[in-house]
Order: sequence, then C-alpha cells, then structure tokens
Amino acid sequence: MLRGLPDGWMGAHEGTGTWTPFDVLGHLIHGERTDWVRRLQIIFEHADSRAFDPFDRFAQFEESRGKTLPQLLEEFATLRADNVRHLRALGLTDADLDRKGLHPTLGPVTLRNLLATWVAHDLDHLVQVARVMARQYSDEVGPWSQYLRIISGAQG
Amino acid sequence: MLRGLPDGWMGAHEGTGTWTPFDVLGHLIHGERTDWVRRLQIIFEHADSRAFDPFDRFAQFEESRGKTLPQLLEEFATLRADNVRHLRALGLTDADLDRKGLHPTLGPVTLRNLLATWVAHDLDHLVQVARVMARQYSDEVGPWSQYLRIISGAQG
Repeated sequence: MLRGLPDGWMGAHEGTGTWTPFDVLGHLIHGERTDWVRRLQIIFEHADSRAFDPFDRFAQFEESRGKTLPQLLEEFATLRADNVRHLRALGLTDADLDRKGLHPTLGPVTLRNLLATWVAHDLDHLVQVARVMARQYSDEVGPWSQYLRIISGAQG
Repeated sequence: MLRGLPDGWMGAHEGTGTWTPFDVLGHLIHGERTDWVRRLQIIFEHADSRAFDPFDRFAQFEESRGKTLPQLLEEFATLRADNVRHLRALGLTDADLDRKGLHPTLGPVTLRNLLATWVAHDLDHLVQVARVMARQYSDEVGPWSQYLRIISGAQG
C-alpha cells in the first residue's frame, strides 16, 4: 500500500498530534517487537498471574528517527514473517486459545482475544492510513467530497 | 488484501443492504469499465456541454453473479492496469486537469476532481472492506474492542 509512493504521502497527517503513515508503520513495528508475541509468551508462562508489560504507543517517534520508509517496510515485513512463522510452529489448539492472560489496564483477557486483536489492530491502522491519505485530496475532489465518506466523515 | 483469504471473510457484511468485500470488488470493477476513463473521454470530447452518464451503484449484484473472488481480483487487476496505462499515455498537462465536465447530479467538475476522486474512492472502499472484516472479530477481541476504533466506531 505504501511502497513506492512519493514522500508527500508518507508525511501527511490530520493535524497536530495525529500520525503520519510513517508513524503508523513505526508503531506496527514496535508491536511486532514488543507486544503480540511477547504477550503470547507471558500467557503461556504466567497465565493471568502476571500482567503484560504496558505497550508504549509513542516508541516509534524515537525508534523510527533517521530511517527511511523502505527501511521500515523491510523491517516490518521481516518481523511479521518471523512472528507468523513462530505462531504457526506453536500449533495452537482450541484449548490454548482459551488460555488466560492479564492486561495491565483492561484486566482479564484470553489468548483468543489477543490474536483477534492482532488482526483487527492491523485493519484499524490500515483505515487510519487510508483516511490520512485520502484527506490530502479533500480539495482536489471538488464536489465529489459529499459522496466520499472517507473525506466527509459521514458514518455509513 | 483479499487474495487467499477464506470464503467467510468475502461474504462478511454489516447487516441488510450493506456490502461484502466481494460486492465492493464488483463495484470497483464496474467503475473501471464504465466510470473513470469513460468520464475522462466525455470531458475531452464534450467538456461541460454533455453530462456524464449516471453510474449504476448496484450493477455488481448482476455482473458478479456466479464469479469467484480470484476471478474478480484478476478482472480488476487487468482493467486497472489497462486504465492506468491509458491515462499515462495521455500525458495530461496542468491545463488538461482544469478541463471542465458536468456531473449529472453534482454539476460542474474538473478533470482534476475526477482523477483525485478515482484515488480517494479506492481508499474509501478500502476502509469499508477493512471495517467489514475487522467487525467480524467484534466478539473475539474481547475487552480490546474499546481500543479499536474500527470496532467501537469511535471517531478520532
């Protein structure tokens, strides 16, 4: 979705404090490194007797500094492939999916919740990136803006 | 985004009258066939002296009938590649982008508006597909739903 796009798209955002596609990619990388598989391991080792470490939602601002978009894409692809390979090798059973964990603020969760959230979290940020990019064209689309929910903000 | 996914994802929707990823793909195909490039031609040939033909937002329900997702993906990829090749070959200038057209309900538009809308329309439907898919996991994500705007519906 992002590979080969001009730099202007990568630095686009929706105002102060909002994230660019570049920021989102760094956030997904940090999740691959410290969140999903790490929390899976904590569930296997400690069940709900030990809370997950809190996730740093702002780590990417430091970690991505000085990197290029192609570098981040490569980094994400490698980490994700490793993590999916690791997950497959575990051969999780239905019983495993019911294993209990403890989220530091949300409380009791299951491994099933964690894995479903890994997927939905990807899609959530994909929506964010698409929205940020489309809104760069808010003016260029002219009167069509009223038909484009991604720009008009209409629910549907 | 859709290639290789289990059938269950392709038929997912958000309730009566809402579209599945399969429906969205058919809609994008119909646009490639009858909308974007056709309207560009009308602008070049008639400027704003002739309105575009109305776009049929429901054509895919007939046209996609009996087709498989891989067939639709292949069809879309071919049509889009042809259309982008056609667009590139035109070598549009800034003056061309200001050419005037007439939308049957929106009224006066420019070629610039049309091309920007082609892009934003893709992203709009990409958001729709991501949302439909993520919401299939509304229950499975458990308490994480409150952190996932794609599921909670929160604006942000």
